[in-house]
Amino acid sequence: MIGLIRVFTAKDNEVLQSHGEMIQKHFGISVLSRSIPDQPLGIYDDESEMAAIPKIVELGIELEKEGCRLLIISCAADPGIQELRGRVSIPVIGGGSSASLVARALGEPVGLMGITEGVPPVMKDVLGDLIVGYNRPEGVTNTTDLLTDEGRRMALEGARSLVNKGAKAIVFACTGFATISFADVIRKELQIPVIDPVESEGLIAANFYKQTD
Amino acid sequence: MIGLIRVFTAKDNEVLQSHGEMIQKHFGISVLSRSIPDQPLGIYDDESEMAAIPKIVELGIELEKEGCRLLIISCAADPGIQELRGRVSIPVIGGGSSASLVARALGEPVGLMGITEGVPPVMKDVLGDLIVGYNRPEGVTNTTDLLTDEGRRMALEGARSLVNKGAKAIVFACTGFATISFADVIRKELQIPVIDPVESEGLIAANFYKQTD
Repeated sequence: MIGLIRVFTAKDNEVLQSHGEMIQKHFGISVLSRSIPDQPLGIYDDESEMAAIPKIVELGIELEKEGCRLLIISCAADPGIQELRGRVSIPVIGGGSSASLVARALGEPVGLMGITEGVPPVMKDVLGDLIVGYNRPEGVTNTTDLLTDEGRRMALEGARSLVNKGAKAIVFACTGFATISFADVIRKELQIPVIDPVESEGLIAANFYKQTD
Repeated sequence: MIGLIRVFTAKDNEVLQSHGEMIQKHFGISVLSRSIPDQPLGIYDDESEMAAIPKIVELGIELEKEGCRLLIISCAADPGIQELRGRVSIPVIGGGSSASLVARALGEPVGLMGITEGVPPVMKDVLGDLIVGYNRPEGVTNTTDLLTDEGRRMALEGARSLVNKGAKAIVFACTGFATISFADVIRKELQIPVIDPVESEGLIAANFYKQTD
């Protein structure tokens, strides 16, 4: 079993399970999802990240005790990944590092998209010179905005503007697009590869998890 | 279809197809394998690499013309990857970069193994501080040596010595181990993950290829 950490306090079970279910469906591995306590808004600045890290570490330690053989921190910023790696004896995979490294293997210029102010440092570090730009769709500040026709239209416009800047692939710099399967929309409309943190962490996690079955 | 470039002149069809067949079997994508002309010994020093690069580029251009939608340079050194990327309009995946980036996503200290003098620069660049050591099994200078009981014993010893140095995973710095499925031997005997360039290039290539079916 793989343990998956959501870095916010999930309001309901459907939201909690969404990343894990996508990974189970795509890669055929069982996932146990848990979310950190008392942070309904998740991580949105340095302070909230500092508050989340010890909770992420504690949750990871628990998940290892409960029998998980690999952990995923399901967030594009890889919050607490070094801290957790230092505290458990099983591998820890991060959404941001996985997506960036998978994108780097493609070797093409990429456009990044997100719904927050900037690009997580881990993604900037790995992708560096391959980044042609970052787009935050106009009027979109949370994943709910992406559920409207207008939100989707603006997000698709954003992806198109990155292609016009020379991007040969789109990398999502947040996991919010995964929940609404926005990668498939871009693939269909723009016919280019999309690298999604949830898909990427699943790809990498499954690759390692399946080796020692 | 994916085009796969072998960076030596294959003596027979079985040898030519071996990497492609492994990728087809593991990832369910069709692969067309070709080898560069007039280099039966492949790439073994700077001069032979310089000789190979224009042939790799030419072969890649041909494979794109024949309808391939993605190319693989199936070698741990990624020879000619930048040159080829500059000449075709489809993605080019390298064995060395794919293996290193997949290993980096695991985030654990790794031991590298190969049958040549040193580690390909592309792998050193990506893995850097994660490398605990490089092992070339004693008495093993080509893949044929790995087919003997003694060769396999020495290679397994080599892997074990890297684990003793702190490696949590083994990364193959050449594709020669793939042909003999040596990754499975290490996984079974040492119970640790193994990152093989042929498996990794297949994982990455399939991930992108399947997006735009």
